[in-house]
Amino acid sequence: MLTIGCIHPELIAALSLCGHGDQILIADGNYPLASKSGQAQKVYLGLSDGIPTVPQVLQALQSVIKVEKAEVMTPEGAEVPAIFSEFYQLLPNVQFCKLDRQGFYDACSEPCVRLAISTGEKRIFANLLLTVGVC
Amino acid sequence: MLTIGCIHPELIAALSLCGHGDQILIADGNYPLASKSGQAQKVYLGLSDGIPTVPQVLQALQSVIKVEKAEVMTPEGAEVPAIFSEFYQLLPNVQFCKLDRQGFYDACSEPCVRLAISTGEKRIFANLLLTVGVC
Amino acid sequence: MLTIGCIHPELIAALSLCGHGDQILIADGNYPLASKSGQAQKVYLGLSDGIPTVPQVLQALQSVIKVEKAEVMTPEGAEVPAIFSEFYQLLPNVQFCKLDRQGFYDACSEPCVRLAISTGEKRIFANLLLTVGVC
Amino acid sequence: MLTIGCIHPELIAALSLCGHGDQILIADGNYPLASKSGQAQKVYLGLSDGIPTVPQVLQALQSVIKVEKAEVMTPEGAEVPAIFSEFYQLLPNVQFCKLDRQGFYDACSEPCVRLAISTGEKRIFANLLLTVGVC
Amino acid sequence: MLTIGCIHPELIAALSLCGHGDQILIADGNYPLASKSGQAQKVYLGLSDGIPTVPQVLQALQSVIKVEKAEVMTPEGAEVPAIFSEFYQLLPNVQFCKLDRQGFYDACSEPCVRLAISTGEKRIFANLLLTVGVC
Amino acid sequence: MLTIGCIHPELIAALSLCGHGDQILIADGNYPLASKSGQAQKVYLGLSDGIPTVPQVLQALQSVIKVEKAEVMTPEGAEVPAIFSEFYQLLPNVQFCKLDRQGFYDACSEPCVRLAISTGEKRIFANLLLTVGVC
Amino acid sequence: MLTIGCIHPELIAALSLCGHGDQILIADGNYPLASKSGQAQKVYLGLSDGIPTVPQVLQALQSVIKVEKAEVMTPEGAEVPAIFSEFYQLLPNVQFCKLDRQGFYDACSEPCVRLAISTGEKRIFANLLLTVGVC
Amino acid sequence: MLTIGCIHPELIAALSLCGHGDQILIADGNYPLASKSGQAQKVYLGLSDGIPTVPQVLQALQSVIKVEKAEVMTPEGAEVPAIFSEFYQLLPNVQFCKLDRQGFYDACSEPCVRLAISTGEKRIFANLLLTVGVC
Amino acid sequence: MLTIGCIHPELIAALSLCGHGDQILIADGNYPLASKSGQAQKVYLGLSDGIPTVPQVLQALQSVIKVEKAEVMTPEGAEVPAIFSEFYQLLPNVQFCKLDRQGFYDACSEPCVRLAISTGEKRIFANLLLTVGVC
Amino acid sequence: MLTIGCIHPELIAALSLCGHGDQILIADGNYPLASKSGQAQKVYLGLSDGIPTVPQVLQALQSVIKVEKAEVMTPEGAEVPAIFSEFYQLLPNVQFCKLDRQGFYDACSEPCVRLAISTGEKRIFANLLLTVGVC
Repeated sequence: MLTIGCIHPELIAALSLCGHGDQILIADGNYPLASKSGQAQKVYLGLSDGIPTVPQVLQALQSVIKVEKAEVMTPEGAEVPAIFSEFYQLLPNVQFCKLDRQGFYDACSEPCVRLAISTGEKRIFANLLLTVGVC
Repeated sequence: MLTIGCIHPELIAALSLCGHGDQILIADGNYPLASKSGQAQKVYLGLSDGIPTVPQVLQALQSVIKVEKAEVMTPEGAEVPAIFSEFYQLLPNVQFCKLDRQGFYDACSEPCVRLAISTGEKRIFANLLLTVGVC
Repeated sequence: MLTIGCIHPELIAALSLCGHGDQILIADGNYPLASKSGQAQKVYLGLSDGIPTVPQVLQALQSVIKVEKAEVMTPEGAEVPAIFSEFYQLLPNVQFCKLDRQGFYDACSEPCVRLAISTGEKRIFANLLLTVGVC
Repeated sequence: MLTIGCIHPELIAALSLCGHGDQILIADGNYPLASKSGQAQKVYLGLSDGIPTVPQVLQALQSVIKVEKAEVMTPEGAEVPAIFSEFYQLLPNVQFCKLDRQGFYDACSEPCVRLAISTGEKRIFANLLLTVGVC
Repeated sequence: MLTIGCIHPELIAALSLCGHGDQILIADGNYPLASKSGQAQKVYLGLSDGIPTVPQVLQALQSVIKVEKAEVMTPEGAEVPAIFSEFYQLLPNVQFCKLDRQGFYDACSEPCVRLAISTGEKRIFANLLLTVGVC
Repeated sequence: MLTIGCIHPELIAALSLCGHGDQILIADGNYPLASKSGQAQKVYLGLSDGIPTVPQVLQALQSVIKVEKAEVMTPEGAEVPAIFSEFYQLLPNVQFCKLDRQGFYDACSEPCVRLAISTGEKRIFANLLLTVGVC
Repeated sequence: MLTIGCIHPELIAALSLCGHGDQILIADGNYPLASKSGQAQKVYLGLSDGIPTVPQVLQALQSVIKVEKAEVMTPEGAEVPAIFSEFYQLLPNVQFCKLDRQGFYDACSEPCVRLAISTGEKRIFANLLLTVGVC
Repeated sequence: MLTIGCIHPELIAALSLCGHGDQILIADGNYPLASKSGQAQKVYLGLSDGIPTVPQVLQALQSVIKVEKAEVMTPEGAEVPAIFSEFYQLLPNVQFCKLDRQGFYDACSEPCVRLAISTGEKRIFANLLLTVGVC
Repeated sequence: MLTIGCIHPELIAALSLCGHGDQILIADGNYPLASKSGQAQKVYLGLSDGIPTVPQVLQALQSVIKVEKAEVMTPEGAEVPAIFSEFYQLLPNVQFCKLDRQGFYDACSEPCVRLAISTGEKRIFANLLLTVGVC
Repeated sequence: MLTIGCIHPELIAALSLCGHGDQILIADGNYPLASKSGQAQKVYLGLSDGIPTVPQVLQALQSVIKVEKAEVMTPEGAEVPAIFSEFYQLLPNVQFCKLDRQGFYDACSEPCVRLAISTGEKRIFANLLLTVGVC
């Protein structure tokens, strides 16, 4: 068992292949990962309702890579999804970019998205597109 | 997203291939899954410390299959691992069988073990070998 | 054997990979599945005449996913295919969309069609393109 | 669509590879096909409860191959499983051989078993091991 | 051995995947099958000079599928290739369509051509593009 | 198209891998090739009844390799299968060895059998195990 | 070992897949085969300096196929590469077509180029693009 | 163990497939190799910080191939990256071409880039795109 | 690029699959890895003479796993290989076990050896068989 | 093109995987490589009669590896095959070991034989089993 903060074999392997500017999607359980993440390697972590959550996956990733940017999918109205405050807290010095539904789908289908992770997250708009930084 | 209690693609696919008498291993994070689960299909769910736990995986499995027997790995001394009480509670009418370390490894390497699941479980002796019942 | 309403290994595995907005085709025995379902995963269930029927497959799917929309192929004339009343009964609160032959072929070849199922159904115009809902 | 009595792609392909003396298993839904059919090609036809049944599969097979022998799994007591009369009716001039549980498992794991078919059959002891004849 | 009129494993498997409107090419021995049959599955039956012929393959196919249309490659001049009369005799109620060399190559490279069969046929212009009908 | 006497891609490829002492099986249509030819590469040439015959395949092989020995399967009684005279005529200076059913199956399952060819031959006892000579 | 003039397994297999109009490239050791031969199957024969030469490969090919046309890459100046006289001698009644460097690269990247062979040839401009004839 | 200056199996295999004009990328540890090297074969040599460096890989390559041109990625400002002097020293008679970030990414994604090597190099702008010469 | 002490994709992936008691071989450049490391996954890191060394690989491994035991290959005489002192220094509280040549080969061929790493190490007897501990 | 004495991609790749004590077979054209070289990687270099010869392959190998031992197959009688003198000349300080036909086959089927090369060599008893030395 690895002594580091991310122990998942496929995840750590895919992360080791990412370089500066590559992107990683962490998606909630209802996100259509197979059709809306381009050629990214797909990793399915969702076991059952809420296991694991998107923030849990984010923390595992942060233990082994640097994040320099984050993109989120926002609802049509003015309401800010509840989970966003958790995102801001976990990524304090990171630039956030808001995209509408289709814009987020398009961004997630770009060739630089290398890894797409599905979770058991049931909260809505709980999707995060991360950009890997330099280390 | 599936509307049932187990949503993991590889897990649900492997479970659908199990019949009466086939066996499934749920192992803690330190268990040597690759070398001590015979020809079973290996599924790695462990993300980070304690995510997910063995009981969480057990509950997901119980939502889609029947369990008719359970085997556990026991330490050399008289002490009963703390996690066993959780096992008994989740599998109330199921027969339990205790095996020592090597006996458990041998049982997990039999051809009828079809699925072996690794978790992020950090508690010791948190391994469970289940036998599928008739439905 | 799974204790749920859909026990087919390939089917349950493919369904577990579908998210909100993904589509699933259930086709009759004469439908050219290989050439008219784009990149969808193809599952052949047809054994012999009428085994299984399209409604039987629909019921198996409904036991594990939510359907939010349905599309059907309609004949050129005014006549409504007999099987449509069965479709309406099994999908009471679902929006139906009618497409002509070529329009249906085109819809079934879109990238969001993830799963295409062939049956032994012998009734004519017995094809159904389902859209997965949120759960 | 084929104009013959068996239209399933994997099934017809596997049957075309069988010769005189090769064997084919048709198993009920609870049969542990993956671990108890040796190196046979496995085809999963079971969709949901009772779809399809073992006799339905047998009839599809009989439309394209000759059967010269049949083996069944029998319960420990004297009782004859209800489904056996259906088997006798469908295979009128075929020699039947009765095996106990373990004997049947052993027979199904021999190298000459080339094809093993899982069904949605829920009736008990509904397993049939067929031997292909000359044509 | 199958009791039907077509016993070739790859052929019967590919035919079982064809639906209404799909196409099948039977080509003579000099036809450039690899480069002029698009994404069709290629099956090479040619053993030596004249074994088998195109009409022999046609008859095997007709025993398991319905043909609703046929296309042939015609020479530049007015002469009708000798083999055409055999084609007309074997497909009495089928619509024939004549294409020049390049037109035939183009038709054979369309996505709906699912199966392309090479033979040992030595007669010239002995190529046949069949369209599968409904049954 | 090759200008030599054997034009079948898989056949010529497999023959090019054979050396002195390797063996090749040409079997009739009812021979259980998949289970009774060991690790040999299997090539299925049988299209329909009698197409092609075993002697036709033998002649194609003789155009590209040397045969130094032949083994045949003989019936239990004293009767000599009709096809044997054809074998003797085609292989005039080759040593023949007669084996009973099981002995022939055993010989065909040895590791030095590199290629096993199924035909459409309907005559009985029409099986030939050839040994490649030096050239 | 084959008794014909070309004994290389991959070569003979690839040649058996070629039909009328398909093309074959025989390239010298410095030719960028991987990037400048389109989707052709690549076969690397070069062992060391001058083993084998391009004419040696040409002679092996001529023993099993008919050549109806040849294309060569020519230098920018007026000088005729020394190896061309060998080409003309080996292909006496074949039409030759001269292409400049880029034109030759383009011709070799067409879909009808099915086989591309690398040699140990050290002479310059020793590349030959052959077109297969009818036999 | 090879007696030559480059012993890495994947590296030597990929280099043996390169011809005149093909290109090879040696990249630093932060370079996004997976998304910015087109269809090139990717070889990951980076073990840990600074092991190996880009110049170490360059020297291994120079022991088995000839380099005729080199391209480097340059920062936006006037500053010349420190590692460039090492590059010039190791490639004394080679033409150098400077590209900006995006230009370098584009060049590395061309089809003639056959091999892309990732290192443990931590120095910035330590990327080298080599063109193979004639030998 | 990973922010941890081991950045090699195959290495980190293989290490993430190791559990308590699994073993890892780090071998010098002359070690016959392919034939003397059983079913272990083989990773070739050796680039050229001395790049990387065995101690460099050991340090990368120690940054992500715990080592509980080490085995070394010892020469026949009394002499202790120079590299051993480096091993002892890097693994201060680890139990060492000395094996002769054949004993070491045998130990490295056991099923619990999951990963075998080849290096560019030129010093003699520079092989290390590590056992993974609990974390 | 590599600047070293062995340019064949598969050959150089396989050689780079060999370590001290591993073995390599160079066989004449009639040697049954597929059945008599165990699990060795097979490389077919034989193009036509005598191209290339066994000594040509030996010289290519000697340019990149060290040979410490050689085994040859000897005829039953006292006669020494003519090619042996060439072997002795090319391997002046190497220990030779003579084996009879079956003994040579057995030696070539051992797990330490990693690479088996077929040639176009027509001279008899032209087979050489080499053992890789330390470098």
